[in-house]
Amino acid sequence: MVKVGIIGGTGYTGGELSRILCTHPDVEIAALTSRQNAGKRVDSVHSYLKGYVGDLEFTESISETKDLDFVFVAMPHGVAMKEVPSLMEQGIKCIDLSGDYRLHDVPVYEKWYGHEHTDVDNLQKAVYGLPEFFRDEIRGADLVANPGCYATSIILACGPLLKAGVVAEDIIVDAKSGTSGAGMVPTERTHHSTCGETIIPYSVGKHRHTPEIEMAVDRFAGSHTKVTFVPQLLPIVRGILSSCYFSVKKDLAQEDVDRIYDKQYGKETFVHYVPEPSIRAVVASNHAQVSSKVLGDKVVSFGVLDNLVKGASGQAVQCMNLMLNLDEKTGLNIPGLGV
Amino acid sequence: MVKVGIIGGTGYTGGELSRILCTHPDVEIAALTSRQNAGKRVDSVHSYLKGYVGDLEFTESISETKDLDFVFVAMPHGVAMKEVPSLMEQGIKCIDLSGDYRLHDVPVYEKWYGHEHTDVDNLQKAVYGLPEFFRDEIRGADLVANPGCYATSIILACGPLLKAGVVAEDIIVDAKSGTSGAGMVPTERTHHSTCGETIIPYSVGKHRHTPEIEMAVDRFAGSHTKVTFVPQLLPIVRGILSSCYFSVKKDLAQEDVDRIYDKQYGKETFVHYVPEPSIRAVVASNHAQVSSKVLGDKVVSFGVLDNLVKGASGQAVQCMNLMLNLDEKTGLNIPGLGV
Amino acid sequence: MVKVGIIGGTGYTGGELSRILCTHPDVEIAALTSRQNAGKRVDSVHSYLKGYVGDLEFTESISETKDLDFVFVAMPHGVAMKEVPSLMEQGIKCIDLSGDYRLHDVPVYEKWYGHEHTDVDNLQKAVYGLPEFFRDEIRGADLVANPGCYATSIILACGPLLKAGVVAEDIIVDAKSGTSGAGMVPTERTHHSTCGETIIPYSVGKHRHTPEIEMAVDRFAGSHTKVTFVPQLLPIVRGILSSCYFSVKKDLAQEDVDRIYDKQYGKETFVHYVPEPSIRAVVASNHAQVSSKVLGDKVVSFGVLDNLVKGASGQAVQCMNLMLNLDEKTGLNIPGLGV
Amino acid sequence: MVKVGIIGGTGYTGGELSRILCTHPDVEIAALTSRQNAGKRVDSVHSYLKGYVGDLEFTESISETKDLDFVFVAMPHGVAMKEVPSLMEQGIKCIDLSGDYRLHDVPVYEKWYGHEHTDVDNLQKAVYGLPEFFRDEIRGADLVANPGCYATSIILACGPLLKAGVVAEDIIVDAKSGTSGAGMVPTERTHHSTCGETIIPYSVGKHRHTPEIEMAVDRFAGSHTKVTFVPQLLPIVRGILSSCYFSVKKDLAQEDVDRIYDKQYGKETFVHYVPEPSIRAVVASNHAQVSSKVLGDKVVSFGVLDNLVKGASGQAVQCMNLMLNLDEKTGLNIPGLGV
Repeated sequence: MVKVGIIGGTGYTGGELSRILCTHPDVEIAALTSRQNAGKRVDSVHSYLKGYVGDLEFTESISETKDLDFVFVAMPHGVAMKEVPSLMEQGIKCIDLSGDYRLHDVPVYEKWYGHEHTDVDNLQKAVYGLPEFFRDEIRGADLVANPGCYATSIILACGPLLKAGVVAEDIIVDAKSGTSGAGMVPTERTHHSTCGETIIPYSVGKHRHTPEIEMAVDRFAGSHTKVTFVPQLLPIVRGILSSCYFSVKKDLAQEDVDRIYDKQYGKETFVHYVPEPSIRAVVASNHAQVSSKVLGDKVVSFGVLDNLVKGASGQAVQCMNLMLNLDEKTGLNIPGLGV
Repeated sequence: MVKVGIIGGTGYTGGELSRILCTHPDVEIAALTSRQNAGKRVDSVHSYLKGYVGDLEFTESISETKDLDFVFVAMPHGVAMKEVPSLMEQGIKCIDLSGDYRLHDVPVYEKWYGHEHTDVDNLQKAVYGLPEFFRDEIRGADLVANPGCYATSIILACGPLLKAGVVAEDIIVDAKSGTSGAGMVPTERTHHSTCGETIIPYSVGKHRHTPEIEMAVDRFAGSHTKVTFVPQLLPIVRGILSSCYFSVKKDLAQEDVDRIYDKQYGKETFVHYVPEPSIRAVVASNHAQVSSKVLGDKVVSFGVLDNLVKGASGQAVQCMNLMLNLDEKTGLNIPGLGV
Repeated sequence: MVKVGIIGGTGYTGGELSRILCTHPDVEIAALTSRQNAGKRVDSVHSYLKGYVGDLEFTESISETKDLDFVFVAMPHGVAMKEVPSLMEQGIKCIDLSGDYRLHDVPVYEKWYGHEHTDVDNLQKAVYGLPEFFRDEIRGADLVANPGCYATSIILACGPLLKAGVVAEDIIVDAKSGTSGAGMVPTERTHHSTCGETIIPYSVGKHRHTPEIEMAVDRFAGSHTKVTFVPQLLPIVRGILSSCYFSVKKDLAQEDVDRIYDKQYGKETFVHYVPEPSIRAVVASNHAQVSSKVLGDKVVSFGVLDNLVKGASGQAVQCMNLMLNLDEKTGLNIPGLGV
Repeated sequence: MVKVGIIGGTGYTGGELSRILCTHPDVEIAALTSRQNAGKRVDSVHSYLKGYVGDLEFTESISETKDLDFVFVAMPHGVAMKEVPSLMEQGIKCIDLSGDYRLHDVPVYEKWYGHEHTDVDNLQKAVYGLPEFFRDEIRGADLVANPGCYATSIILACGPLLKAGVVAEDIIVDAKSGTSGAGMVPTERTHHSTCGETIIPYSVGKHRHTPEIEMAVDRFAGSHTKVTFVPQLLPIVRGILSSCYFSVKKDLAQEDVDRIYDKQYGKETFVHYVPEPSIRAVVASNHAQVSSKVLGDKVVSFGVLDNLVKGASGQAVQCMNLMLNLDEKTGLNIPGLGV
């Protein structure tokens, strides 16, 4: 059994990692840290884990647990770059779910996150953990930067056409996310009376996933592609729908588009190309759905996923499986809810 | 024009008072206080008031505005009892929307609110502002304690049968409220990812509206009636449904019950006895709907209202109209949304 | 008092017309038709109208009521063009809330609606009822085609920049609507278990508001502007957010954009240019909010409204006021809910 | 591998059975029937099953598939009693998810369901499939009547205290259910614009689960206990909260109550006694949470579950496991979502 630790076990992505890993056949959750809940039983804080984590208790720091094989860092940005160096030195493989290791361009990181990057060495080695596009790199990695939830949905939606070289310069992304994407700390925006029965554009032109999306898009597109990214808060708990619009370089028939996506995703377990994408079809699972429609000289591509699973903790476990040479599906092989 | 001030103009009940009063034909909003927004234009904070409050600005304290005729205190409990004495001395009529003046029994207040009551004199004079039952008292009052949202819904639902003397000893109230009832301060419970797609029992047996409900019930019932009150948080913004269960002293036919309610509410503007109560029928209005069904030797009575209107600010304006000898409906004569 | 009739009093837009008109000081609701509810009291079907429509009953046909001055047709497309000719002959002014009189180009109508247009004469005379842009035409009109809810939100969002001539050729509209926009007939898509806790793209590239939007856009833009229109169903009851993306012809500063919108809407009662548009700020009112952000060489403009009020029945009453030479605000002068 | 068939594969409970069984290690889904989708690939109708059901197609009738070992009937009441006799004759074990085999008292069935019961023989043999209370009977059964979703939540909440003999005569149940409990056929009540942003009491005193609940309650209580059952429709998709109120025969301390529940559920896998029950903690899983609070001489007991899993298809699989002598947890051993 692989001994796994999770730094940040109280928050939504840490809780979701626990929920997935507690039934993973090859893994044992050996440590969950939580400053505020240290010393408490995990299942007294997360009652949904009753019966799945024995009498495990939260600990203050990951260093209290010996002989860990693998660590997830499920903390806000800025924390992982303090924890990762020591883990790397100990030879512990690591996945960071924050933005700390996603942007290889240090000045870009510092501009968008507003503080210095203090672990540039590991930043250069970190692999971007989107298995459907970078599977081989992830297999050999010691450190994986798990993609953001918005970025995953957008790259899955646009990647195949970008790689096929048919996308003209600009991409407009109108993205909508459930509130769990904002994390567990109550704020004015995620207060139910603020965000219920409405949809709220926020961080227009200023969201930190923008450079991450542009970085990925550039890798596929070869040249620089501008991404206009407008996130909007939905009155739902889990789920993202990213609607991506772009002009195409030449006349494309719907059949051409379908062929490109079928080729890309036909053999994938977790990403499906479908006529009508549905958040409810993927929610509570590591599956994503992608759809693409030709509308004259424009194309709209939709990417849909559960932001806490394929958009965060599920994808991290998928990467872990690759890094540990396990079957990529292990512990994740469950359909979405449907209803 | 009556010059009105509102202490606490940022919160939900203060905002709702502004929304109602800004189109009231006999009233001018002369002052809105807000510690955090003092000096800002009101319509820059509450964009829904654009065009309705001119260039009015928030002020730090109500004493900055001279010649006020009427003041609403729309603050958490504990504040009104500091503000009201001076207002009373100046001869300014006053409605408090908090719990400070609802419980005439001082030890009961201090037990449930956890601090001393510092204005016992005015407490004894305060009238409970439920016009459908205490209209005449409100007309002559200088100080009105506006009922709580839960209490209003429950008293409207049970009052007629209590007054008719047919209710056996106990009442069980299973109440459900939208999140705006909890106010504008973000908390863990009202965080969307906590309270969305679920319903949460809270403060079971410990909610501060319990003594208020029991006090009112006792006035109707003559003898002491125990109220078991279980509030639950709904994933909606506005609206309360209180389902009230009790045994009846003797065999009651549905027709008997209907007659009692029709007699009580037949001439009321804002309370309607209907076969199927509906939050959507009353939301955004000062209307309430009440329904009552005989189920063998039990009766269930439903009370439905918009917690920010008939459950708070609308009812306060209804009381103000009475206190100012205006037509009770003035400024409130608008149907609920329906859809 | 102007005697008003509503054809289609059961549906959402007919109900909303009743809700608004029942407190309108210059108008009397003299007739509401409903095939399924003929003979029933209106307030037994719409309990929210209790106390506002006396003992008015639904009638089978509008012709049963004599001496009407004004008629609203609140029926699905195809019905108005059968009713309007006779009303016009009788000299009764008329507003159609369906798509029957919006598209002056008959072949375009027949292509998108799938049946013949049988009242081409009146079609040519009908005025498009968007007061903020066509106020003078509406004043003199006998027949007004009330705009669609999506179209209103989009034209309000884009109109000022289109008129200013700064928009490059294409517009991409990512629109989101609450379920009441789909009407009162239960369908698989509007079944709560289908559309709750999700957002569903539908009619992608095939929605009937597309030609209406393009028609309006062309009037402003001078030349033909292609509109890519993608509607999505939100899990809310009332409200539309249309996010409109386009390239601009030349470098535009945010200040330039702000100036254009301020000039257009600065004196409007019902449309406000704001930094952060909010459905909750306008819901239950005839107000709309518009916002526009420069994002490099792109602009995103947001249009927000209550689809049943400014997107349908409220706007129809606003047009009626103009057609009857009343103050445009009469009966509509109420702020949105805010919370 | 056990070859399983599902009669009614399109509806919500049939879909949910497929979702659970497709990853069950000891079972193969050999047949799914659907009149409307016969001949179509299952994953073209239920896109969430892509990759989990191969190229399985819906069939018209269960008799088309040979050598089935086990059949679930997931159809509205009235259908199972036509299908079950032939299955029993063929020696195929069977679970019916409708109400057809729940009420052993034929006249009671016929009164509440409004038609004759045509399979009284099997009705007498059917075992009520609530494993936490009737595990041994289920193990030996050929035919199991799967409990209703409301009934499960209520019996789990009240059963321990009923068995302990501390409940006085009456039980009041205020139950709240998500819309998926009403099935997949669109109706006026489950139309989003009707049931969104509200909570709707329905079938007050007339719901068909009432006799089922009373039957179970009587088994525990020894004597007849009256149940006042008021269901209410929540604006959520999945989840039930049943709040059950009753007087207790003698003074009970909270510790006494806790001990009774701990004893009943301490060793159960799927039912947990917790301080604060949460729909989100159990949603998407076969877990239920139960909580009970002493409030003076009253007790409120809460039962919480996912109506499609522990309230329907998950519980059916739990019963199947017992009937097949498999580990009861097989295929169901997954925590609820938590967030």
